Amino acid sequence: MKRKLNECLIEITDNLENGIIPFWLKNGIDKQYGGYLTNFDENGNPTKDTDKYIVTQTRMIWGFSAMYREYKKEEFLQAAKQGVLFFINHFWDEEFGGWCWKTNRKGSVLDSGKVVYGQTFAIYALSEYTLVTGDQLGLQYASKTFDLLQKYCTDTEDGGYYENLERDWTLSPAGFAAGDLKSLDIHMHTMEAYTTLYECSQQEIHKRKLEEIINLLLKRMINSEIGYGYNQFDIYFNRKPASNIRRTWNAERETGEVIEKPTDTTSYGHNIEFVWLINRACEILKQPYHKYDELSRKIANHTLKYGFDHELGGVFRDGPHEGAPLVRDKEWWQNCEVLIGFLDVYERLGDEKYGEAFIKTWEFDKTYMINEEIGEWRQLLTHDGKPLISNIGNPWKAIYHTGRAMLECKKRLERILGN
Amino acid sequence: MKRKLNECLIEITDNLENGIIPFWLKNGIDKQYGGYLTNFDENGNPTKDTDKYIVTQTRMIWGFSAMYREYKKEEFLQAAKQGVLFFINHFWDEEFGGWCWKTNRKGSVLDSGKVVYGQTFAIYALSEYTLVTGDQLGLQYASKTFDLLQKYCTDTEDGGYYENLERDWTLSPAGFAAGDLKSLDIHMHTMEAYTTLYECSQQEIHKRKLEEIINLLLKRMINSEIGYGYNQFDIYFNRKPASNIRRTWNAERETGEVIEKPTDTTSYGHNIEFVWLINRACEILKQPYHKYDELSRKIANHTLKYGFDHELGGVFRDGPHEGAPLVRDKEWWQNCEVLIGFLDVYERLGDEKYGEAFIKTWEFDKTYMINEEIGEWRQLLTHDGKPLISNIGNPWKAIYHTGRAMLECKKRLERILGN
Repeated sequence: MKRKLNECLIEITDNLENGIIPFWLKNGIDKQYGGYLTNFDENGNPTKDTDKYIVTQTRMIWGFSAMYREYKKEEFLQAAKQGVLFFINHFWDEEFGGWCWKTNRKGSVLDSGKVVYGQTFAIYALSEYTLVTGDQLGLQYASKTFDLLQKYCTDTEDGGYYENLERDWTLSPAGFAAGDLKSLDIHMHTMEAYTTLYECSQQEIHKRKLEEIINLLLKRMINSEIGYGYNQFDIYFNRKPASNIRRTWNAERETGEVIEKPTDTTSYGHNIEFVWLINRACEILKQPYHKYDELSRKIANHTLKYGFDHELGGVFRDGPHEGAPLVRDKEWWQNCEVLIGFLDVYERLGDEKYGEAFIKTWEFDKTYMINEEIGEWRQLLTHDGKPLISNIGNPWKAIYHTGRAMLECKKRLERILGN
Repeated sequence: MKRKLNECLIEITDNLENGIIPFWLKNGIDKQYGGYLTNFDENGNPTKDTDKYIVTQTRMIWGFSAMYREYKKEEFLQAAKQGVLFFINHFWDEEFGGWCWKTNRKGSVLDSGKVVYGQTFAIYALSEYTLVTGDQLGLQYASKTFDLLQKYCTDTEDGGYYENLERDWTLSPAGFAAGDLKSLDIHMHTMEAYTTLYECSQQEIHKRKLEEIINLLLKRMINSEIGYGYNQFDIYFNRKPASNIRRTWNAERETGEVIEKPTDTTSYGHNIEFVWLINRACEILKQPYHKYDELSRKIANHTLKYGFDHELGGVFRDGPHEGAPLVRDKEWWQNCEVLIGFLDVYERLGDEKYGEAFIKTWEFDKTYMINEEIGEWRQLLTHDGKPLISNIGNPWKAIYHTGRAMLECKKRLERILGN
C-alpha cells in the first residue's frame, strides 16, 4: 500500500506541478484585459467563448492563491492579484452590492443576476487570497459579500439560504429560475466558503454562521444513518426530485442530454466532497479531529457500495439513494473530489479499502481523464473512459477541482507517508 | 351599542388628549439632558431612578411621532426630534453598531447588552418618526439596525431570531441570560417593528422579512386551531415553560413575586395584541382585508372564554393553554392591548360580543386602571381593581401601550361610528 501510495504522490505532484499549474499559468491569464480566460477546446486551444463567469474567475483566484500558499512563487501571487483587481473592477455591483454572474472579456456585464453559488465562491476565493497574501482587499470584499448574504439571502422563516436572486436581490421566480429552491450543492459550497472566510477573519459571526450551516446540512440535507445527500428541496426543506436549474444545475450541458422526468437521485461526487469539506470545517473550527468519523465512514461506504466502479475505478455521476447507479458517465469534478474524499477517510480511519479506492480512482483518472499532452483533465467520459466532452476548460472548470484535488492529495499523502 | 361606543369614544379621546399626552409632554421630556424621563411614582412625581432604558426612550419617540401623525402639533414633533437626537447620540454603539440597553440620565452607557427586544423598538420608533416627519435620519438608523439584525441575530439553522446578545453581538449564555431562547414576545414585536419599517421604506427586503416573520409566528408560535400563543421556545422551536429572563421577562418585577416552577402558560394580552398587529401588518402589505378573520375570531374567542373577566371586564395576566386563568392580576398593558384587539375584531367581524368585551374592558380600565387625577394609568391591579403597583411610569411603560391604545381605539371608533 505504502509503495503504491508513494507512486501516486509522485504522479499527482507531477500532474500538479508540470501539468495543471503550467497550463493555467500559460493560458489562463488574460494579459490583454486582466482576469482569466477559462474556455479551452480538447487540444487546449482557446475557444471563441471569451466571456467571463463568476464561478471560473473566482476559482482561478482561489487556485493561484492556494498554489501561492503551497509554493510561495511570486508569479502565482501576481496571477491571483491581477484576477482580484479585474474581478472587483468588473463583477462588483456598485449600486446593489454583490457580484454579477457573467461579463464579456472586457468586463462589461452580460448577466447581472445574483446567484448564491457565485457569491459564495467570491467569498471562498477572496478569503484565500487575503489569507495567503495579507492583502486586506480580499477579506474586505469577502466580508461585504457575507453581510449581503445575511441580509438578502437567508430564510428567516425556515433557515438556510435562498439561492437564486435578481440583480436587486429580489427572489427569482419559481421553476427553472429556482427562486423557490434549496439545494445541497449550494449549501455545501456555502459551508466551504465560510470555512475559509473564518480561517481568514477569525470573526465570531463567521464562525457562528459556519456552525449553523453545518448543522443545517446535517439536519436537512444529509442522510446520516445511511450516508448520502439529498439533492434538491423546496424552500421548506421538503425533498424533491432534482430539476434542471437556470445557470447552476445541468442547464448548460453541451450533450443536449435532457432528463425528462426529474429524479430523486444522490450525487456520489457531492457526497464524498461533503465528507472532506466538513472534516476541513471541523479542523478550522478547532473541533475534535474524529468528530465526523462515523459520518465519513458511512458516506464513503455508501459511495463504495453504489457509486464506485470496482472494475475500472472512479465514481459514476448519479444514482438512486440506494441501488445501482442511474447515470454511469464519469465527470471530471466527481473524480477529483473522490480522490480527496477517500484519502481523507483513509487517513482518519486507517481502513485500507479507502486507500485502495483512492488508488484505483487515480489509476482511472490518470489513464482516461487527464489529457496527457496538455496535463489538464477532460470534462466527461463514458464509464469505461471514452471521451464525451473533451474540453480542457469551460465556464465551470478552471483550476479548481483538478488543482485542488492534486494539492489536497499531495498534502495528505505526504502526511500519510511521513514525508 | 352605538350610543355606548360613542360614549367610549368621548372618554377615550379625553383620556388621550387631556390625560396621557399632557402628562408625558409636561413630565416626560428631559429638558436638561435631552431624551425622556420615564419613571414616576403613584402621584406622578419623578422617582430617583432617572436611568434611561432603550425600551422607554424608543416608546416615547414612537409616541410623540404617532401623536404628531394624528394631531400635527409642532410641539409633538419637537418632543420626538429631541428624543431621536439623544437616542442616537447616546444609545448608538459606534464600535459594534446597534443600541445599548440602558444609560444614566446624562447618557453614559450603563448596560451595553444588545437585546433584540430593544433593537426592534428602535426600528419601530425611528421608522414612525421618519414616516410622519420626513426626516430621513430615523429611517437611516432603522435600516442600519435592520441590517445588523439580519447579520447577527437571525438563526440560519432553524429560522427566527436569537434574542439576547452581548455588546459585540456574540450570543448571551443559556439560562437566565436566555441566549438559547426564542419567544413569541420578541418575535411578535419584530413583526410590529418591520410593519412600520416597511410602511416607511417601501423596500422589498423589509417586506420579505416581514412576510417571513408572520409565517414563522403562525407556523411555530401560534396555535391557530384553538387560538392562542405559546410563550417560550428553545432555539429549535420546541415549546418550553416560561422562565424568567434577564432584562425582558418578569425579571424586574417589584412585587417580589417568584414563580418557582416555570409554567407553560399563554398570555391573554399578547394573544389579543397579536391579533391587531397581524391585521395591521396585513394592511401595510396590501393583503386582503379579511385574510386573518378566522384566526382573529379564534384568538378573541379563546380570550373571552379563558382570560376575560366577565364580571368586571378586562383580562387576567396568564393562564394555561385551555382552562381557568393562573395569574388573575390585571396589568396595564394587557388591558390596553385588549381594547384595540376586541375593537379590531368587532370592526372586522361585526359580532357584538367583541364590541361588548371592548366596552366592559374600558369600563374596568377607566374605573380602576386610570389614575384620574393624573390621567395616566397604574401598572398592576388585583383582579378586582385594587392597586398592587401604582407607579405611573417605569422602565417599560411610558406613552406606548396607553397612548397607542387610546389612539388606535379612537381611530377605530371613528370609523365604526362613521364620524
